[in-house]
Amino acid sequence: MHIVSLAGGIGGARFLRGLRATAPDDQITVIGNTGDDITLFGLRVCPDLDTVMYTLGGGINEEQGWGRLDETHVVKEELAAYGVEPQWFGLGDRDFATHIVRSQMLEAGFPLSQITQALCTRWQPGVRLLPMTDDRCETHVVISDERGRRAVHFQEWWVRLRASVPAESFALVGVDAAKPAPGVLEAIAEADLVILPPSNPVVSIGTILQVPGIREALLAKTVVGVSPIIGGAPVRGMADACLTAIGVETSAQAVLELYGADLVDGWLVAPEDSGVALEGVRVAARPLLMTDQDAAAAIARAALDLAQELSG
Amino acid sequence: MHIVSLAGGIGGARFLRGLRATAPDDQITVIGNTGDDITLFGLRVCPDLDTVMYTLGGGINEEQGWGRLDETHVVKEELAAYGVEPQWFGLGDRDFATHIVRSQMLEAGFPLSQITQALCTRWQPGVRLLPMTDDRCETHVVISDERGRRAVHFQEWWVRLRASVPAESFALVGVDAAKPAPGVLEAIAEADLVILPPSNPVVSIGTILQVPGIREALLAKTVVGVSPIIGGAPVRGMADACLTAIGVETSAQAVLELYGADLVDGWLVAPEDSGVALEGVRVAARPLLMTDQDAAAAIARAALDLAQELSG
Repeated sequence: MHIVSLAGGIGGARFLRGLRATAPDDQITVIGNTGDDITLFGLRVCPDLDTVMYTLGGGINEEQGWGRLDETHVVKEELAAYGVEPQWFGLGDRDFATHIVRSQMLEAGFPLSQITQALCTRWQPGVRLLPMTDDRCETHVVISDERGRRAVHFQEWWVRLRASVPAESFALVGVDAAKPAPGVLEAIAEADLVILPPSNPVVSIGTILQVPGIREALLAKTVVGVSPIIGGAPVRGMADACLTAIGVETSAQAVLELYGADLVDGWLVAPEDSGVALEGVRVAARPLLMTDQDAAAAIARAALDLAQELSG
Repeated sequence: MHIVSLAGGIGGARFLRGLRATAPDDQITVIGNTGDDITLFGLRVCPDLDTVMYTLGGGINEEQGWGRLDETHVVKEELAAYGVEPQWFGLGDRDFATHIVRSQMLEAGFPLSQITQALCTRWQPGVRLLPMTDDRCETHVVISDERGRRAVHFQEWWVRLRASVPAESFALVGVDAAKPAPGVLEAIAEADLVILPPSNPVVSIGTILQVPGIREALLAKTVVGVSPIIGGAPVRGMADACLTAIGVETSAQAVLELYGADLVDGWLVAPEDSGVALEGVRVAARPLLMTDQDAAAAIARAALDLAQELSG
């Protein structure tokens, strides 16, 4: 079976590890969010792609969910000693190497999709990992603070401000001119099933869906989503702050409606959300906490079973 | 007193530390060799400038003579894990931070001279450190090996091949169009004394002297040189391999003749070279081994004394 899964960072990566474990013979293509990407110290950082790559490749800091196992932070300390900003973004030494390789390849003219493939020859994630687009396309957040109303890069809001200042709106700068990366539409066209993992519905999945052509291509497909909200709270992260900003309630019901019945065919929710319903969508309830790899695999299995029901 | 000193890497840096110690009240401007500079992994590396900066700034790996104190090598290991070349150049994590800052500033449009000044605000070397030029100007070495006759970057010959393959010639690529960095000619014009420290006479001092305008400006000045050769052998490094390549004997006499009596007014040699003589040059002999910082300071003092004799 050909499966396409969209993915943000930690939640998506953990779900994908479960999916790969439960469906080892299926061909999985991952379309990763690049709206979180940022250029720091002249180096191109792709947090979500790297989280997927490291998680599936066995290099992730398991406890933290992002960054590298056995990480050190000498370069960051030295940059701080030079007084170079920003100092709020936690790049480790091992991680720096990834960004150095990526940046060097970008400078040499390679598109991000080819670079990601090259990085994956080391990590062997067991899935085909594609960026949603090769075009620069970054999420910015409009906030109001003591410095007035202004737009900051998503990472500044997310990491430096810990989403403590309310987001007024999000702007995916560059998306109008962005094209899906090579292979993205082809993979969707070939897919027997598309999965929306429990990633952030606004700044991860929502971002991917904004790339012209991707959402349209998905409409023709069987799409199963896993709710990132359990009983009114995000599984992890600060999805509630993002949902609130776009006027959407933090609930499994509201996220399903945000995605829309035209897109989603099956929707997996937690038992406490079993009342969720939307015409044209088959809803199934089961525990959704990815407490360990087995739990993630069981959730992925449930998503595949739901897809099976839809086609049966 | 205003002193200008040219400088290569380790030998020059150690001499300069001695000079600063023995002449704490003098204003010292260092014109550093940038012919060894190389772009690695997309980052701009300036080995000689950094060796001077780290040595005078208290950040040098004392035993090694180059690179940072308490250095780690995580980034390099990771780059090797990605299979990225070259793997023969030993960049440490702390050192990487310097190159990241430099590269980011270059990308932002700053010239190397301003970047060097910015880096020195951290290191406070106690001298004004100027690159010989802001223009890219790198030494290449013509060699013949199993791959035929070809030119390699100086660092490949020096670090990877350890100068084991004979150099047929050196080419300072880009020097014809290079201009002295801002401040270089002004510092020479103001100088009461110019010092040629015991750096490599071919690929360090010789390189600086090739930048159009620098040698010419020095001719009008009192110039005291410290021989980098003691009794037919380099004080350190592989200067003999460089001298042989340009058809010059490895001796204090031959290096003096290479520099020329038009440039050099005073020449400090080791006791075993006390027979060195050249018309128009005052030669003085004293121990020249920089065994420790006191020894370096004493040699610097001897150079200042020789200058004093010349002007007296």
